[in-house]
Amino acid sequence: MTQTADKKNTVKVKLGENNYGKAEINLMKINRESKRHEIRELQVRVGMTGDFDAAHSQGDNSELIATDTVRNTVYGLAKEGFKSSPEEFGKELVTHFVKTGAKVSGGFMEFTEHLWDRVQVGGQGHDHSFVRQMPKRTGRVESEDGKAFRVTSGIAELYVLKTTESGWENYLLEERFTTLPETHERVMATFVTAKWEYNEGDVDYDAVWEKVFGQLQVTLTDHYSPSLQNTLYLMGEAVLSICPEISRIWFRMPNMHHLQYNLGRFDLENNLEIMHVDPEPYGLMEGWVERA
Amino acid sequence: MTQTADKKNTVKVKLGENNYGKAEINLMKINRESKRHEIRELQVRVGMTGDFDAAHSQGDNSELIATDTVRNTVYGLAKEGFKSSPEEFGKELVTHFVKTGAKVSGGFMEFTEHLWDRVQVGGQGHDHSFVRQMPKRTGRVESEDGKAFRVTSGIAELYVLKTTESGWENYLLEERFTTLPETHERVMATFVTAKWEYNEGDVDYDAVWEKVFGQLQVTLTDHYSPSLQNTLYLMGEAVLSICPEISRIWFRMPNMHHLQYNLGRFDLENNLEIMHVDPEPYGLMEGWVERA
Amino acid sequence: MTQTADKKNTVKVKLGENNYGKAEINLMKINRESKRHEIRELQVRVGMTGDFDAAHSQGDNSELIATDTVRNTVYGLAKEGFKSSPEEFGKELVTHFVKTGAKVSGGFMEFTEHLWDRVQVGGQGHDHSFVRQMPKRTGRVESEDGKAFRVTSGIAELYVLKTTESGWENYLLEERFTTLPETHERVMATFVTAKWEYNEGDVDYDAVWEKVFGQLQVTLTDHYSPSLQNTLYLMGEAVLSICPEISRIWFRMPNMHHLQYNLGRFDLENNLEIMHVDPEPYGLMEGWVERA
Amino acid sequence: MTQTADKKNTVKVKLGENNYGKAEINLMKINRESKRHEIRELQVRVGMTGDFDAAHSQGDNSELIATDTVRNTVYGLAKEGFKSSPEEFGKELVTHFVKTGAKVSGGFMEFTEHLWDRVQVGGQGHDHSFVRQMPKRTGRVESEDGKAFRVTSGIAELYVLKTTESGWENYLLEERFTTLPETHERVMATFVTAKWEYNEGDVDYDAVWEKVFGQLQVTLTDHYSPSLQNTLYLMGEAVLSICPEISRIWFRMPNMHHLQYNLGRFDLENNLEIMHVDPEPYGLMEGWVERA
Repeated sequence: MTQTADKKNTVKVKLGENNYGKAEINLMKINRESKRHEIRELQVRVGMTGDFDAAHSQGDNSELIATDTVRNTVYGLAKEGFKSSPEEFGKELVTHFVKTGAKVSGGFMEFTEHLWDRVQVGGQGHDHSFVRQMPKRTGRVESEDGKAFRVTSGIAELYVLKTTESGWENYLLEERFTTLPETHERVMATFVTAKWEYNEGDVDYDAVWEKVFGQLQVTLTDHYSPSLQNTLYLMGEAVLSICPEISRIWFRMPNMHHLQYNLGRFDLENNLEIMHVDPEPYGLMEGWVERA
Repeated sequence: MTQTADKKNTVKVKLGENNYGKAEINLMKINRESKRHEIRELQVRVGMTGDFDAAHSQGDNSELIATDTVRNTVYGLAKEGFKSSPEEFGKELVTHFVKTGAKVSGGFMEFTEHLWDRVQVGGQGHDHSFVRQMPKRTGRVESEDGKAFRVTSGIAELYVLKTTESGWENYLLEERFTTLPETHERVMATFVTAKWEYNEGDVDYDAVWEKVFGQLQVTLTDHYSPSLQNTLYLMGEAVLSICPEISRIWFRMPNMHHLQYNLGRFDLENNLEIMHVDPEPYGLMEGWVERA
Repeated sequence: MTQTADKKNTVKVKLGENNYGKAEINLMKINRESKRHEIRELQVRVGMTGDFDAAHSQGDNSELIATDTVRNTVYGLAKEGFKSSPEEFGKELVTHFVKTGAKVSGGFMEFTEHLWDRVQVGGQGHDHSFVRQMPKRTGRVESEDGKAFRVTSGIAELYVLKTTESGWENYLLEERFTTLPETHERVMATFVTAKWEYNEGDVDYDAVWEKVFGQLQVTLTDHYSPSLQNTLYLMGEAVLSICPEISRIWFRMPNMHHLQYNLGRFDLENNLEIMHVDPEPYGLMEGWVERA
Repeated sequence: MTQTADKKNTVKVKLGENNYGKAEINLMKINRESKRHEIRELQVRVGMTGDFDAAHSQGDNSELIATDTVRNTVYGLAKEGFKSSPEEFGKELVTHFVKTGAKVSGGFMEFTEHLWDRVQVGGQGHDHSFVRQMPKRTGRVESEDGKAFRVTSGIAELYVLKTTESGWENYLLEERFTTLPETHERVMATFVTAKWEYNEGDVDYDAVWEKVFGQLQVTLTDHYSPSLQNTLYLMGEAVLSICPEISRIWFRMPNMHHLQYNLGRFDLENNLEIMHVDPEPYGLMEGWVERA
């Protein structure tokens, strides 16, 4: 091995924080117990943490759980468990790997859930036909010991927009690189990513998710927005007000700029009617809203 | 110019079929006439055809419409026109460019429309707040002379799935590379792309689109599917039956395989309950359904 | 079946042009005959055409080749054949399916080839270690009878740019929506997609591809470009001049606009030094260059 | 405002960790000082941290730097500064915003650099024509006070593969969900993301990046790999050995599985010659390698 020769010139190193597992495990679980089928579709990632030093530094794989086994386990435990929410399924998975792997002390399970509505036939949701929806549900379950868990739930790809009741004024105007004029009437649009953490105690993760998903949309409508930052804060306040289970919530809210196209050059008026939906760059706001 | 020297060794060539224009023009038009705002968001491409030989072979740009002008025009005519459907807006655009460009004899306008629903507040759609939906509306308007038009409308990203009432049997089994077992019970899922052409006469493009969009979902539910090919055909038959305006319809239907995961290895039953959603490869069916 | 009831209101329809097969078959073939391994990685799509009317209209699958069989066949014939280019492999596949399927009269094979270079170690390409490159090779082989073939080869994702020796002048300036100023000095960038067809006779597809790939880059450098259209034409002329095997070549060339950012507002000069790489919209030129 | 009415039921909340700025600023800087032009293309994100409580909770934007100003500043300072590496440019930007914004106490600049090679003409790199390469350079510069900086540099999209000298053996075999057979001969491929931190002192970021980029490829070739974990560790060891400036390095290494396709069913041998390049799921290894 060329490696040996090179070793003469290597410095002393050690393994730092690390994990390994399997990612993009695409799972659908279908509940066929009644004629009215239920489906859940998850993309799952599992990571394990523990004493993996020998594998990294010595190439000694003994006692390691193969990532192929992780895949098999996700499908196997989806059969035996996964009776309620993806978050609870995540706890089952992490618990399993800590029990099974002699060197595994903790781990995490992350998921993206693809959401499906029932196909509407004659005003009724069909028993076994479904149509994919756009926003996604996300989550992460993490444990250091396979017993105590930190759970984070979230929403991705919730794209909302309002055509009025939004502005941006009174910011730092006297500054060399500032050219933007103030406005109290603009289009505001954002592609919301949110995640939240929980207080201690039992949680119905599915029910909480539905409440947050609805509230974010309602809060968008209930105030004049002087900034995306303020809307972010009000969304957080509203969620914490209706969901006592949630301890704090984080948002990533890009300001998807809808710019009034300059039609004056062609002797045409434009009262926020003809907009350029500009893909880049975008303002980007990130922040936690927490209980005071 | 190095070019001159190289010319010694060039062969005789000519320009073949060609077009040029502007692509990915992102436009939102907001109708603020009443308190209840209406929005339409299009990604537009315009291509022009005509006598562009001098530009290509001689570098002579005289009389050419700049693609920057195409962009300005899309926004300008969106203000002056675009009163009904994107298809009609496409006709306005192509007509304009044929009139304006001395060398332009025809052209096309293609669009992808991003669909927005109203945010629900207390069971009612909000006046000026919207949430993006997943499927997309598409279309292409084309003319050779700026007078007569060929219009094609379509749907993209309609992802539907049924958990039963589907199978695949009685195909060529005695063949060297065939290993798939027959089944009369499977999960069928497809990510539908459709496009359709029209008979002569006036068309309410928006109304037709809504009918097709609803019917494709309903047809999915109304039969046992012996193959995706048969479902494709029945979808086409159903659309042609309810939309006399449509002359023929085309589908691109990937068979998004949901494979029963092999749990027998772990002494677990799997009656189409635990599925691997396999991203690749996929069966791919394409075909036109036409009036007989 | 609900279907029966609905049938009362259906109109008469028929199947039009159609095909089916398997897409996104990801194949790597490794030649291990010598210590210096060779690899080729293809993403393959196979489509079959023929008499598939019964399957579509009656749900009668008899004699149909399953798309799962298509997958098996691609891997199986990759072992038995695929000794030279992907184009020749495509001919083997289409020929096979026409022979095997009683109802298959023709078909096509499309591929995208991911290109790998050898890892450089001490100035030498390594025997069995590779690093992925950006441009892709593409192709399509098509036959109506499994005997005569139309072959198209291509390049995708070739992103080239020149910082000078390019302009855009003398176009239609006196026009309502035209605001762009003329220039004889700009940055020109394009993300080239090309495809070409062949004259009759034997072709070394691999050798031709390498020649085209190199020539497109060289032609970019060898002239002042008065328009992307002219560069498109000169690239076509150059390829046809050095590749007698090629009958005609098509390009899709977006004009990836690099716009001088307006720094005058901040009392800073900008001589095409500080550019905004604007992702949209873009000019889009498409055209064939053919032998005269 | 409906908001007022809702306020009756809100709980007490506060703003937690937060930042805002501009993302996806696409910048190219062209150095035209000599005939041999130099280009650098960055996608930049700037985030500011500080006392933004009033903006969030009260809608009071006073003293806030607009994100539009952030964009202008990136282009403006790219003209005045950005004389060496993107990392140094990041320091200039963060320093500027802390100085300019009364409420800004710190911030970060993240970049993705698109890499361009010179077009080869007659064996020489051309003066002003370039072709885009696949791997990307990344980085993040962060400061709490606009004076002291933490710099992280990285590589993304480095896709490497070896066709032999790799295996996976001696892992936990006696386990319910383990079905994978051991092997000492497989194809190993990974799509490397790496990032590294620096020791104190001056750093030539461009020079270090080149060394890391080359070394990762060389290390891939210089050992039999008993696991991707071991290769990750050896890559880290090698980098730390040749780059004294680097304090530690992190890798995200998916195991892009190349699976031997089962050809035995068709009486064909397959000695790792015909592979299925499986896009999902993939093993995923993450870890830091640090100085001991």
